[in-house]
Amino acid sequence: MKIGFLGFGEVASTLAAGLLNNGAEVFTCIEGRSLKTKELAKETELNLCKSNRKLAESSDILISAVTPLQAVKVAKEVGKYVKGVYIDINNISPSTAEKALSYIENGKTADASIIGSVRKNGLNVNILVSGPFANQFAELNRYGMNINVIGSEIGQASAIKLLRSSFTKGISALLFETLYSAYKMGIDTEVLKYIAETEGEGFKESAVSRIISSAVHSSRRAEEMGEVIELISKSSDAKMSKATGEFFKQLYCEIDGINKWPGDYTEVFELINNKNRKK
Amino acid sequence: MKIGFLGFGEVASTLAAGLLNNGAEVFTCIEGRSLKTKELAKETELNLCKSNRKLAESSDILISAVTPLQAVKVAKEVGKYVKGVYIDINNISPSTAEKALSYIENGKTADASIIGSVRKNGLNVNILVSGPFANQFAELNRYGMNINVIGSEIGQASAIKLLRSSFTKGISALLFETLYSAYKMGIDTEVLKYIAETEGEGFKESAVSRIISSAVHSSRRAEEMGEVIELISKSSDAKMSKATGEFFKQLYCEIDGINKWPGDYTEVFELINNKNRKK
Repeated sequence: MKIGFLGFGEVASTLAAGLLNNGAEVFTCIEGRSLKTKELAKETELNLCKSNRKLAESSDILISAVTPLQAVKVAKEVGKYVKGVYIDINNISPSTAEKALSYIENGKTADASIIGSVRKNGLNVNILVSGPFANQFAELNRYGMNINVIGSEIGQASAIKLLRSSFTKGISALLFETLYSAYKMGIDTEVLKYIAETEGEGFKESAVSRIISSAVHSSRRAEEMGEVIELISKSSDAKMSKATGEFFKQLYCEIDGINKWPGDYTEVFELINNKNRKK
Repeated sequence: MKIGFLGFGEVASTLAAGLLNNGAEVFTCIEGRSLKTKELAKETELNLCKSNRKLAESSDILISAVTPLQAVKVAKEVGKYVKGVYIDINNISPSTAEKALSYIENGKTADASIIGSVRKNGLNVNILVSGPFANQFAELNRYGMNINVIGSEIGQASAIKLLRSSFTKGISALLFETLYSAYKMGIDTEVLKYIAETEGEGFKESAVSRIISSAVHSSRRAEEMGEVIELISKSSDAKMSKATGEFFKQLYCEIDGINKWPGDYTEVFELINNKNRKK
C-alpha cells in the first residue's frame, strides 16, 4: 500500500518514519519546500515525488498534514488528481474540514484528528477518524498506527477535538474568574484547597498551570473560541462558550503587558490588579 | 463552657449530640417549635431554655443554625442580649452574613461555613470560620470539632463556600452545553471519553451525575448564582458566573417538564431536543 503525505512537518515526518519502520511504502513531495524540510525528508529515507499532483495520483492513502491555513488550499490544488483515499488530519474545525474535503472529486474522503501529542506518542498517537472512507484509513493500524473510527460523517472527528478543547478552555476561564475574586478577598489559597477536595488529586497543580497558560495564550484562545462558538451555536445559544471567548478577549487586553512567563499565578493577578487600579 | 444553638435542625442537632458526647454543656430553646424538633431535642438530652433571649444571655458560644432566610431575623431578635460569642453557621452569602452579624451589639462575632456533609461526617465535618472572634469559636475543637480559622474578616468563610460552589456549578453548565452539542452530533460518548483522558479518573461518572443533577436542580442553581454574581462582580465583570446563571435560568425553562429523576443524561437531552423541535 502506498501512503502519501502532503506537507512534511512534525506530524507527517513522525508518522512517516514510524510507517517506514513497519514496512509501509511512504511518499511525499518536497519540491519548493524549505531546506530543513528537504533534509528531514532525506533523513527519513522515504520516496520522493516530483509534484503534489504526482503524489496524489500515486497514493492509495493520501494524508494532508499541512498548517491549518493551508488545509483548504492544498485540497483544492490536488482535488481532481486524487486516485485513492484522501484524509485531512489537520487541526481545523468541522466546517473547514468539510470545505477542504469537498474539493476531492472522487469523494473518497475522511476527516481525522490527533488527540494528544505526536512528539510524545509517535506513531502510536491516538487518531480519531470519521467520514465515508474512515475504515480504509484505519487499515493503516496494521503498520502500528492507533486509528479509531468514530462515525461515517465528515466533521465528527474534528468536532470531538474541538469540543474537548473548548471544555478545557472554559474550565480555565471559570477558574481564573473564581480565583481572581478569591485573590482580591485574600482567600485564594483556601478556595483552591477546598475546590481540590471535590475535584480530586492533581487539581491544584493543574489549576495553577491553567491560570498561567491562560494569561500567556489569551490571544490564541480567544481566536480559537470563534470556531467553537460557531459549532455549538448550531445546537444551543452557546452561552458558556460565548462567555469563554469574551473572557479570553478581555484577558488579552488586560494582560498584554505580560512579557515573561510568570513564576506563579499570583503574578498574573497582581498585573491585572495594578492595571485596573490605574484606570 | 456553655454552647447554645439557635435552631435545631439537622446541623444543630448533629453538632449538639457530638458536643454532648464529648462532655460539653449544650443548650437550645424549643419554645414554639414543631413537635418533631421538640422530640429531637429531648432525645439529645440537652439543656432547654425558655426563650431565645435566655439562650443568648446564658451561652458562652451561641451558634445560629437556622434556615438561610431566618439568619438575619434571628440575629436581630437576640442581638442585644448576646453575652458571649455569636457564630453564624448558616448557608448564606458574605453580605448576608455581614448584615446578620451587624445586629450583635457586643461585636463578638464570627462567620462560619460548613464544607461537606454534616450527615456523613457528624461532629468532625470541616467548618471554616472567619471574623474577629474566630479563634474563640475554634476552641470548640477540644470537644472534637474540626474548625479551621481562615482569617479575621467577616465574610471570608462564607465566600470560600460560595466561590467553591459557584465553580462547580460553572463546570456543570459548561459540561452540559458541550455535551448537548456533542449529543446532537452523535458523538457524546466519544467527547466524554476523550475529555476524561485529560481530566482523569472518575471524570465520566461525575460528569453524568452533574448533567442529571443540573437538570433536576436548575431552578435552585439559577437562584444561588445570583449571590455569586454579586460577590464576583466586586472584582471583575463576572462573565463566566453571569453565563452560568443565565444557563441555569434557561435550562429551567426548557426542562420544567421533568417530573421524575432521569435514568441517564441522554433522557435529559432528549427532553430538551423534543421541546426545541416543537418550537
